[in-house]
Amino acid sequence: MFSDALRRDAARIGAHLDKILSGGPDLPVTQGMRYAVAGGKRLRGFLVLESARLHGVDEAQAIWPAAAIEAIHAYSLVHDDLPCMDDDDLRRGLPTVHRKWDDGTAVLVGDALQALGFELVLDPGCHSDAAVRADLALSLARASGRGGMVLGQALDMAAETADVPLSLDQITELQAGKTGALIMWSAEAGARLGQADPKPLTDYAMALGLAFQIADDILDVEGDETTVGKAVGKDADRGKATFVSLLGLDGAKRRASELVAAACDALSPYGAQAQTLNEAAQFVISRDT
Amino acid sequence: MFSDALRRDAARIGAHLDKILSGGPDLPVTQGMRYAVAGGKRLRGFLVLESARLHGVDEAQAIWPAAAIEAIHAYSLVHDDLPCMDDDDLRRGLPTVHRKWDDGTAVLVGDALQALGFELVLDPGCHSDAAVRADLALSLARASGRGGMVLGQALDMAAETADVPLSLDQITELQAGKTGALIMWSAEAGARLGQADPKPLTDYAMALGLAFQIADDILDVEGDETTVGKAVGKDADRGKATFVSLLGLDGAKRRASELVAAACDALSPYGAQAQTLNEAAQFVISRDT
Repeated sequence: MFSDALRRDAARIGAHLDKILSGGPDLPVTQGMRYAVAGGKRLRGFLVLESARLHGVDEAQAIWPAAAIEAIHAYSLVHDDLPCMDDDDLRRGLPTVHRKWDDGTAVLVGDALQALGFELVLDPGCHSDAAVRADLALSLARASGRGGMVLGQALDMAAETADVPLSLDQITELQAGKTGALIMWSAEAGARLGQADPKPLTDYAMALGLAFQIADDILDVEGDETTVGKAVGKDADRGKATFVSLLGLDGAKRRASELVAAACDALSPYGAQAQTLNEAAQFVISRDT
Repeated sequence: MFSDALRRDAARIGAHLDKILSGGPDLPVTQGMRYAVAGGKRLRGFLVLESARLHGVDEAQAIWPAAAIEAIHAYSLVHDDLPCMDDDDLRRGLPTVHRKWDDGTAVLVGDALQALGFELVLDPGCHSDAAVRADLALSLARASGRGGMVLGQALDMAAETADVPLSLDQITELQAGKTGALIMWSAEAGARLGQADPKPLTDYAMALGLAFQIADDILDVEGDETTVGKAVGKDADRGKATFVSLLGLDGAKRRASELVAAACDALSPYGAQAQTLNEAAQFVISRDT
C-alpha cells in the first residue's frame, strides 16, 4: 500500500539523517538542523527511493540522495519561514526554527542544511562511480539554485509587490521553480543512479509537481490549520494569485486530476512496477496536510 | 610581483563570474548575486589559481573552482551582514545587499550563491575526471558546512551571549572554521586538481588562515573605516575576545609574523616556484583592507 510505503521510507530517511546528524557540538545550529529535518511527509525522499527501486538500485545507495533532498527541502523551509520572507510561526504543527531559537540561528541552520545536502549526495556510499555522484550533485545545484527553486522564490517575492496579479502561465513558471524543480530532481534521481533514461520520470514529475502545488492552493482555501500544520488562508488574505483564484475551486480540482492522469500515463513504460508512484500521484491531490 | 598577480587573478575570476551570471531574468536576486560577487581582493580564488599553477594545472580548469570559492565566500558575507547576524551596512565600501535591496533578497542571494558555488566546482570544465570534481565538491561541502565555516559562525554567535570571553584555544578553533576552512580548501584545490599530495598546502593554509584572522583583528583596532571598507572597532565595543585582546597588539603582530614564517616553511618542497604564495602570506599581515 502506498501510505505504508511512504511511512516506511520516511522512517528510513529519518533514521539516516539522525545517524548523520548525531554527535558533534551541542550548539543551537546543530540542534536546529536536527529539528528542521524531523517530521514531514518526506515526499521528495520517497520519490528518490521509489524511482531507485524501479531501476533496481540498492536502497543502501539511494538513501543518500533521499536524505540529501530532504536536507535541501528543509533548508528552503527554514529560510522561507523567516520574518523577512513568509514570516511563519508554525511548520508541521511546531514552532518554526526562528521562533524556537532566533533569526540568526535559522539563517545558519538553513545554510548548513544546504551544504549537508551536497555532502550527502556526494558521499561515496551513494554510488561507486564518481561520475554518477558528480552528475547528481550538479543537477541538484541547478535544481535548487538560481535557475530552479531560488528563481521560483524570487519570482514569488516579485509577485508580492507587483501591481498586477500573475497570469496562469506566470504562476505555472513560478511553481515549476519553487516546488517543481526539487520534485523533478527527486523523481529523476533513481534513473540517474541506475544510469537509465530519466525521460518518463521527468514527465511524471513535471505533472506531479504542478498537481502538488495546485493541491497546496486548494488546501490553503479548504484546509484546517490544525490538520495542515501551518497557517492557512494567507494567500487569499494577501490578494495573491493562486491556481484557485485563477481557475476557481472546481477548475483547480479538475486540472489537478488531469495532471495526475498525465503523471500516471508517463510511467506506462514501467507497467505494474510503477504502482506505488501512481498511487503517490493520487495522494498528492487527496492529502489533507 | 605578488600584487600584480593578485590583481590579474582577481580580474580573471571576476570576468568568469560575470560571464556565468550574465543573462537570465532581471530580478533583485540576480542583480544582488552580481553585486555580491563584484570587487573584493579575491584572495581565496587567487589561492586556487596559484596552487593550481604549482601543479601545472591549466588555468582554464582552475578558474572554475576559483570562481566557486568566491561565490561561497560572497554567500557567507551576504548572510553574515544581515541585521539578525552581524548587522553591517557597509561591505567593500558599498551598501551591503540587504541595505541596497532588502533582507529577504539578501537571504535568497546568499542561498543562490551557495548553490552556484557547487554548480561551478562540478562543471565539467573544471576537470575531465568526474572523480576529481566530486572530490572537490565534497570537500567544499565539508569546509563550508556544519563542520567548517558554519560551525565557526555558530561558535562566534554562541560567544556573543556567553558570560566568559573565549580563551586563545577557543578563538583559534572558532577561526579555523569561520575563515580557516575556506582558505584551506582554496590552497588545497590546486593539489586536488593536479591529483598531488595536498599536505604542504594544507600546512601553509592553516598558518595563513590564522595569520589572516589575527591581521583582521589588528585592522579592527588600527584600521581606518574608509580604507578597510567596513565598520571597524566593533569587536572592542562589544567586549568580544579577539587575538588582540588576548595577546595584546604587539603580541598579536608577533604571532602573525611567526605564522607567516611557518606558512612559507611549509612550501619549501616547492622551492622558488612558491614565491608568489610566499608573498601572499606576507601580504595578509601587511594589508590595510
